[in-house]
Amino acid sequence: MHFTRIDHAARVSAIRSLLSAGDLGVDALLFTDLVDVRWLTGFTGSNGWVVMRPDRAVLGTDTRYGERAAAETDCSGVEIVAIQHRGDLHRALVDAAGTGTVGLDARSTTHAQWKQLAVDVSLASVNSIVATAREVKGVAEIERIEAASAAADAALQEVEPLLFGTLDSPLTEADVRDELEYRMRRHGADDRSYETIVAAGPDHAARPHHEVGRRTIVEGDTVVIDVGALVEGYHSDMTRSYVIGEPTAQQRDIYELVQVSQIAGLAALHPGVTATAVDGACRDVFVEAGYADWYLHGTGHGVGLQIHESPFHSQASNDVIQAGNVVTVEPGLYRGGFGGFRIEDLAVVTPDGHRVLTHHPKRPFSTSFSN
Amino acid sequence: MHFTRIDHAARVSAIRSLLSAGDLGVDALLFTDLVDVRWLTGFTGSNGWVVMRPDRAVLGTDTRYGERAAAETDCSGVEIVAIQHRGDLHRALVDAAGTGTVGLDARSTTHAQWKQLAVDVSLASVNSIVATAREVKGVAEIERIEAASAAADAALQEVEPLLFGTLDSPLTEADVRDELEYRMRRHGADDRSYETIVAAGPDHAARPHHEVGRRTIVEGDTVVIDVGALVEGYHSDMTRSYVIGEPTAQQRDIYELVQVSQIAGLAALHPGVTATAVDGACRDVFVEAGYADWYLHGTGHGVGLQIHESPFHSQASNDVIQAGNVVTVEPGLYRGGFGGFRIEDLAVVTPDGHRVLTHHPKRPFSTSFSN
Repeated sequence: MHFTRIDHAARVSAIRSLLSAGDLGVDALLFTDLVDVRWLTGFTGSNGWVVMRPDRAVLGTDTRYGERAAAETDCSGVEIVAIQHRGDLHRALVDAAGTGTVGLDARSTTHAQWKQLAVDVSLASVNSIVATAREVKGVAEIERIEAASAAADAALQEVEPLLFGTLDSPLTEADVRDELEYRMRRHGADDRSYETIVAAGPDHAARPHHEVGRRTIVEGDTVVIDVGALVEGYHSDMTRSYVIGEPTAQQRDIYELVQVSQIAGLAALHPGVTATAVDGACRDVFVEAGYADWYLHGTGHGVGLQIHESPFHSQASNDVIQAGNVVTVEPGLYRGGFGGFRIEDLAVVTPDGHRVLTHHPKRPFSTSFSN
Repeated sequence: MHFTRIDHAARVSAIRSLLSAGDLGVDALLFTDLVDVRWLTGFTGSNGWVVMRPDRAVLGTDTRYGERAAAETDCSGVEIVAIQHRGDLHRALVDAAGTGTVGLDARSTTHAQWKQLAVDVSLASVNSIVATAREVKGVAEIERIEAASAAADAALQEVEPLLFGTLDSPLTEADVRDELEYRMRRHGADDRSYETIVAAGPDHAARPHHEVGRRTIVEGDTVVIDVGALVEGYHSDMTRSYVIGEPTAQQRDIYELVQVSQIAGLAALHPGVTATAVDGACRDVFVEAGYADWYLHGTGHGVGLQIHESPFHSQASNDVIQAGNVVTVEPGLYRGGFGGFRIEDLAVVTPDGHRVLTHHPKRPFSTSFSN
């Protein structure tokens, strides 16, 4: 697949401008979170840091990654320093930091590393401005997320008939997971986005974060499938829910409630709304129906280079939704002995509202295929 | 698969005894590394800590994991505290820590967490004694590692004919990886152990940590396949190397050199030898043949709940091999334009020497199948 190039140079110079203008209260910034480093420069190795000053940006890594760093960060305006020995790499960081105060997010470094750095550098703890900037996705990022989402759509499209055929050809939760993960790659994914959830039956489907097991899926089961793909580091996220065999009246009712809640959540999703209000739109449907205590989690989260990132839709959130956010809307109802349902779409927030990136249909009952 | 039960209670009481005896120089220990927490208690959730005092061991986590923690740590003698709000969970940790000094490994906590804890607790930085204890595997752990290794063996057994058939039915590196990962699970693995490496051709195979791409494997390629499985949290690790089509004289010679080196490394593996000597046994073969600069990495590492853990075979290592270590022996030669070969077996160190856990044969040339 050919995607729009991600303009790392623009990202690097935007942050250098903020430093030049003296807006950040520090003389330099150090980024040690590898997701921040990747977002800034394009570098994908497992060891690296970036030091930014108004006049200079340096990416430090070890010699394993020298060649890769140079190739991946080409055009970003970042100098590469690849050094074999840890002590020498530390010295290069101190040199790049120069004089004055260096801002670093205390959540993205170990205490041991902080103490070692503090010997040579005047450190100040600041929230990562890159983590904040990452909340708003550009066109190039949305292309990759859509491609990931399409790979998951295509895999689930192929696996649903197997799922509904389980009464004839029995499948375990693990079987369904394995087929999904294999097929996402056949449809262009680099990998799964996270550990695929296939939760079936009265106990497993009642756990929002069930670990996939060897349980055979049987008639009457509710099944929750939460699956996403990874494309060039960008994640997708989707959940569909099913009943195996003829649904009971209760299963139909609960499923419909989740569907109404999910539609209400999407309807609330537009720039300027609080993440709390999006959560509330889904939650209110459950509260009014008397099912508040069947809803065990928040309504969604941002998705990008990480599968869970800001903003977060929950009652405890302080986030405000803005255009360019890519977020999930994923209400669900769960009860031991019954099982559960969750419906989740991924959507990008647009100036006018939002656009759903998940295109796979919602067909919970095998009969919906012939409808 | 039914494995011997891992005796977490014995692990917990051993550490409590050390605390009672006053051998550790602290009054309590705090474990925040999730691998240490799992090794100690069996808990597999993504959020948790353990506080140990001579008279008490407490595992703290959030309410998502309360039920799982209770089930997984049954019989370990650990009390579970599952609390929804972060502030309350922090308070529970402070209560469990009690009075006196609490030892914590500064490498396994963020600076932000350390500062927050230091407000209420007298902290001392100590090396994790669990990380050290983890180096020696018990029977129950070796069973799981062997099962993981067997799943990788079985998958590669099935995929090798496809690899040698690539001239008739072309395959990319990614195709081979996808088949291996799918088939390991069919053979009982919970997952891959790490991102499978399939590196083919003069450039890719010359990189020890190549990222799998969409390159089609062609005649004349050297191919390095580095693949392992995961079973109940325990990893395996194996590498086999190949030539597609008739090997050249140089390819035969270089392959043989790697094979001789790998046999020399295994021959050196017994209790009491330094990890440096194991590395040297492999390296000497290359130095004598004039290929020292084709060897780009250390000779191996410990494998357990982590894919890379102590001891490490390298010239910089201070580790000494002891019975119960499970380690890789994995020399290789790499050169841009030529490609590369690596051969890796996993072995457990026994009182008398070692026992190889990787059983898949080494058949680098398609003709070796008919031999």
